Amino acid sequence: MKREELLVNSIRFLSAYAIEKANSGHPGLPLGAAPMAYTLWGRHLNINPKDPNWINRDRFILSAGHGSMLNYALLHLYGFDLTIDDIKNFRQIDSKTPGHPEYRWTEGIEATTGPLGQGISTAVGIALAEEYLREKYNKKDLNLIDHYTYAICGDGDLMEGVGYEALSLAGTLGLSKLIILYDSNNITIDGGTDISFNEDIKKRFKGFDFQYLEVEDGNDIDAIDKTIKEAKKDTKRPTLIEIKTIIGYGAKSLEGTSKVHGAPLGDQGLSELKDFFKWDYEPFEVPEKAYELANEELDKKKKVYDKWLEIENKYKEEYPEEYKSFMDGINGVVPEDLYNEDFFKFEKDLATREASSICLNTIAEKLDYFIGGSADLASSNKTEIKSSYSFSKDDRTGKNIRYGIREFAMSAIGNGILLHGGLKTFVSTFLVFSDYLKAGMRLSSIMELPLIYVFTHDSIGVGEDGPTHQPIEQLTMMRAQPNLNIIRPCDAVETAYAWKIAMESDRTPTAFALSRQTLPILEGSGEGLLRGGYIISEAKNREKIDLILLSSGSEVQFAISAKEKLEADGISTRVVSMPCMEIFDSQDDEYKESVLPKDIRNRISLEAASDIPWGKYVGLDGVSIGLDRFGMSGPADSVFENLNIGEAAIIKAAKDILDLE
Amino acid sequence: MKREELLVNSIRFLSAYAIEKANSGHPGLPLGAAPMAYTLWGRHLNINPKDPNWINRDRFILSAGHGSMLNYALLHLYGFDLTIDDIKNFRQIDSKTPGHPEYRWTEGIEATTGPLGQGISTAVGIALAEEYLREKYNKKDLNLIDHYTYAICGDGDLMEGVGYEALSLAGTLGLSKLIILYDSNNITIDGGTDISFNEDIKKRFKGFDFQYLEVEDGNDIDAIDKTIKEAKKDTKRPTLIEIKTIIGYGAKSLEGTSKVHGAPLGDQGLSELKDFFKWDYEPFEVPEKAYELANEELDKKKKVYDKWLEIENKYKEEYPEEYKSFMDGINGVVPEDLYNEDFFKFEKDLATREASSICLNTIAEKLDYFIGGSADLASSNKTEIKSSYSFSKDDRTGKNIRYGIREFAMSAIGNGILLHGGLKTFVSTFLVFSDYLKAGMRLSSIMELPLIYVFTHDSIGVGEDGPTHQPIEQLTMMRAQPNLNIIRPCDAVETAYAWKIAMESDRTPTAFALSRQTLPILEGSGEGLLRGGYIISEAKNREKIDLILLSSGSEVQFAISAKEKLEADGISTRVVSMPCMEIFDSQDDEYKESVLPKDIRNRISLEAASDIPWGKYVGLDGVSIGLDRFGMSGPADSVFENLNIGEAAIIKAAKDILDLE
Repeated sequence: MKREELLVNSIRFLSAYAIEKANSGHPGLPLGAAPMAYTLWGRHLNINPKDPNWINRDRFILSAGHGSMLNYALLHLYGFDLTIDDIKNFRQIDSKTPGHPEYRWTEGIEATTGPLGQGISTAVGIALAEEYLREKYNKKDLNLIDHYTYAICGDGDLMEGVGYEALSLAGTLGLSKLIILYDSNNITIDGGTDISFNEDIKKRFKGFDFQYLEVEDGNDIDAIDKTIKEAKKDTKRPTLIEIKTIIGYGAKSLEGTSKVHGAPLGDQGLSELKDFFKWDYEPFEVPEKAYELANEELDKKKKVYDKWLEIENKYKEEYPEEYKSFMDGINGVVPEDLYNEDFFKFEKDLATREASSICLNTIAEKLDYFIGGSADLASSNKTEIKSSYSFSKDDRTGKNIRYGIREFAMSAIGNGILLHGGLKTFVSTFLVFSDYLKAGMRLSSIMELPLIYVFTHDSIGVGEDGPTHQPIEQLTMMRAQPNLNIIRPCDAVETAYAWKIAMESDRTPTAFALSRQTLPILEGSGEGLLRGGYIISEAKNREKIDLILLSSGSEVQFAISAKEKLEADGISTRVVSMPCMEIFDSQDDEYKESVLPKDIRNRISLEAASDIPWGKYVGLDGVSIGLDRFGMSGPADSVFENLNIGEAAIIKAAKDILDLE
Repeated sequence: MKREELLVNSIRFLSAYAIEKANSGHPGLPLGAAPMAYTLWGRHLNINPKDPNWINRDRFILSAGHGSMLNYALLHLYGFDLTIDDIKNFRQIDSKTPGHPEYRWTEGIEATTGPLGQGISTAVGIALAEEYLREKYNKKDLNLIDHYTYAICGDGDLMEGVGYEALSLAGTLGLSKLIILYDSNNITIDGGTDISFNEDIKKRFKGFDFQYLEVEDGNDIDAIDKTIKEAKKDTKRPTLIEIKTIIGYGAKSLEGTSKVHGAPLGDQGLSELKDFFKWDYEPFEVPEKAYELANEELDKKKKVYDKWLEIENKYKEEYPEEYKSFMDGINGVVPEDLYNEDFFKFEKDLATREASSICLNTIAEKLDYFIGGSADLASSNKTEIKSSYSFSKDDRTGKNIRYGIREFAMSAIGNGILLHGGLKTFVSTFLVFSDYLKAGMRLSSIMELPLIYVFTHDSIGVGEDGPTHQPIEQLTMMRAQPNLNIIRPCDAVETAYAWKIAMESDRTPTAFALSRQTLPILEGSGEGLLRGGYIISEAKNREKIDLILLSSGSEVQFAISAKEKLEADGISTRVVSMPCMEIFDSQDDEYKESVLPKDIRNRISLEAASDIPWGKYVGLDGVSIGLDRFGMSGPADSVFENLNIGEAAIIKAAKDILDLE
């Protein structure tokens, strides 16, 4: 057997045996796609397992994440920190080889994948980051950034809307260093793709302005190699290479059927596989010659790496300022005076989306590595970077990304930009459309990427656009998601602190919920936000508090005006601004007790949204005022009034629970 | 001016003045798309304003819902219950003319639209329903069902992934009675589509196996008319007609720019508009000749309607059995013995997804009008209808819909099937992928469509597939959404009751969260589910209860086993099964007090998910045991153990709050 066949079959058998041992997993993809995976890794992918985070490495994303064993086998064979024992522990608790590839968990895994369509979309973000950095920093003969982004995807990735959105944008932007290998096997879980997916892929991708290439035999390594080379030649368009494969190739009684997609092969299937490939090795044994070939290939890759080190050194010498800027991006360095007094000072009352715009623009002016965009709502979200222009096919240095009306792809691409490294970024849309990108936001949290979600039009305050545009359940949806800070500031000053938190967050994404309507700057608002919730307006008699009001965002003003009336009636009332429950909940018990003393049971919360998350603060004796219905179309003030969100509701509830007239 | 011009311009000026008066709205679309809208409504659309719910009417969906005034103007001109006064009240509280078209709110509106991409996807569902009913019921010369589904969409609809997904499926299924008019104006909010959307639409839609037609001048009524006729001739493929328009046509200083998309024209714009169209009428005045033309057209439509009535009568006589079946579908009639004793009886312990499969198949066998499908997970969701086969291009009577890996489109198509009428339907995927279809589920709730969402793999019990496949926040996300019942049954028996609720729901969608793993049938489980939450296992001493345990789904078994140990230690413990919080919350106070007496403050909840929704039940003195992190990959039992979800956690919490050793 040729060495490259030994290597390809090593991928196949490591996968098959690991899945068999775990009694769980997806052998169909590794068996069919092993040749393309080898061709890519062995002959093209510039990586260095000794420096797995090398900023100029080629990126590889297994978008069809269920085929994770393919990726683990590659990592093992190409010298990453992943042993045969790790492979034997496939899909076991705390092993390096979980069911789907997990970023930050396993060295060399570039993105968490599994939820279909998102891997290729994330790859688009990585490719976009590469374009920006390449154009911004490279100098004649000194290419600091110059690498490819590769992905392997399956039918499911192309059926999912998010994949469509991202690739349509990649075509529009001409991200030519994105090369996608499409493992085209015409099989999905429920059967042949003819029943649900008979697109003419070539026409579709030509419609996207992709280069479309095809390999008819997915086992033909030289043909795949040649086609990848051709893909690289097109410097104007991204490439999709459709590679025809047979799912579960070699497990003769199963191959080509959906049965082999997601279940172990079983004894018979394994034995057929061994016969077919004339494989004479023990389970989990890799032939020496396979390692030998991989090592030779690694030596070549090492030379590319060493050459880059030389370039980097030269660049550092010749362009110290640019190099510093580049490294500042990688390390997230912020000028000392960024969050100075002025950052938190506002001249007049503003919608929090307007305040956010001021902060965002201050930051963008000072940080070269800060880019972002909107899903076609920049003018409404107020997220235009005024000191820059559009990132486009013709100019890669624009800091405003025009995502188009593609919220989901936007979040996945945002994830990809951060995965690349060297950049900080935000995305933006209306809060209600967080629904569209929920699954992408979940991956931000799982991957611990500090992506900033600027959501505006945060409540029924949207007004005339009506129920479809007025968020109700979205704040709760996000609060329930682990590792996400959702901040709903009550005024301009809190908004500035929210930006500070978001920018300084290292491993947690942040979402802002910002108002469309103008909000007064409230006395006492500000730094308290850094603790998530705080006393924004203390009772006159702090020794004897009758009532605690809790609120967030545009409703805090109502809580404060209600308090004033209640105090006038002799009811000692504290108002707590609670812009971020997650941060408040993470404070120490002493602080939390100081804000919400356990023995004060008369508590009322007010938020123009689902009241579910407030239950844990108001308890069985308190009242949550919120919305358990959809909104209505009309001027914002009338909508608040009609839905009874305001001062009057608080006063009524207060009299009820205090048993007053 | 020709009468048809007068009618087209009436649409334009009603829209422009209404938006001006409301000082809010989107004039760009009505000004550009009025001619295509008129051509469709005047010359093609078979409707009867006196019988707006006529089952065989042509359907019209304004997918670009922000252009709502276009639709309201048409409804007014074509005799629906919508007056000039209603139009003057555009975007005001409780008016018939809210900001976006709202189904059930305004007569003649076929779907709530506004969230982009979903209108065309819903139209696909309507067209699919038509195909099923047409094939199933029509007899030679007696076409009970035989109508078109039309939609007007904009660039945004085509950029959104959901629109892509749905149209790709429509092409695969060859839904030839779906005709989409694409208002192609090359402008989105943030500017020209070239910055974010330069697809070759023709190639793309040919790739989807659509008939692609083009009209170069969006003001050419005869050309549009001719092209719609051509569209109808293709009986194998759906049609997309790209109609080139100028956004805001006629408001000369604004037209063709993004400025005219979403803001009133202002005095100058209006005056330009009047000049351009030589429009000499008062605001909100419609020329008599425009009404006259519309009425003539309505007379023609009436003849089509009357002819159908004849067909219906003949059909009723000649095919009484089929007619009854057809009407049963429309009225949702269920055989009396459907929910008999056997329906709720199970021989052995089952995963709730398996129990659900039994219920679903029992229902499907008895109801001709019950169809549904999965996003390529039928075999995992256990939602295959075994007594039927695939709905396909070649056979429209199959009851199993193969949605492909397109969760979001699936929900929108499900909405469309219900909007059509005559059918009951379900959709299915893994619970974690409810994220992908969240925005479609929201429209189910807003439109009050009783779509059934069968979500399986409902917790960390998924096991090896790991964090990306284990839901944490999804139950909370759904519980926060108004008008949605999310039911998480604890065993097979509760599952059967859940199906009964879902089937009998008239205006509320239902979502099931079902287990992958086998669950024991618990003593006491069952009918109590109909009240949302109930005492599944009473304390030995019901007069003196020390502790209440609350749980749902697969964790109820842990609560019961914990209870047994606690009772053995002399702690009088009640266990409440809470499969559906929304239904429980809607019970009368007396019942709720009987289950959760206010003075029993020692309460512990256990659910393998975000604990946020339990706060309101356990209060400040109780404990919620849940998950505020993502899951892990490993065998299911180990994952439960590692994440401390089980009996031991309850016992520890009980001892803590009861201050015991």
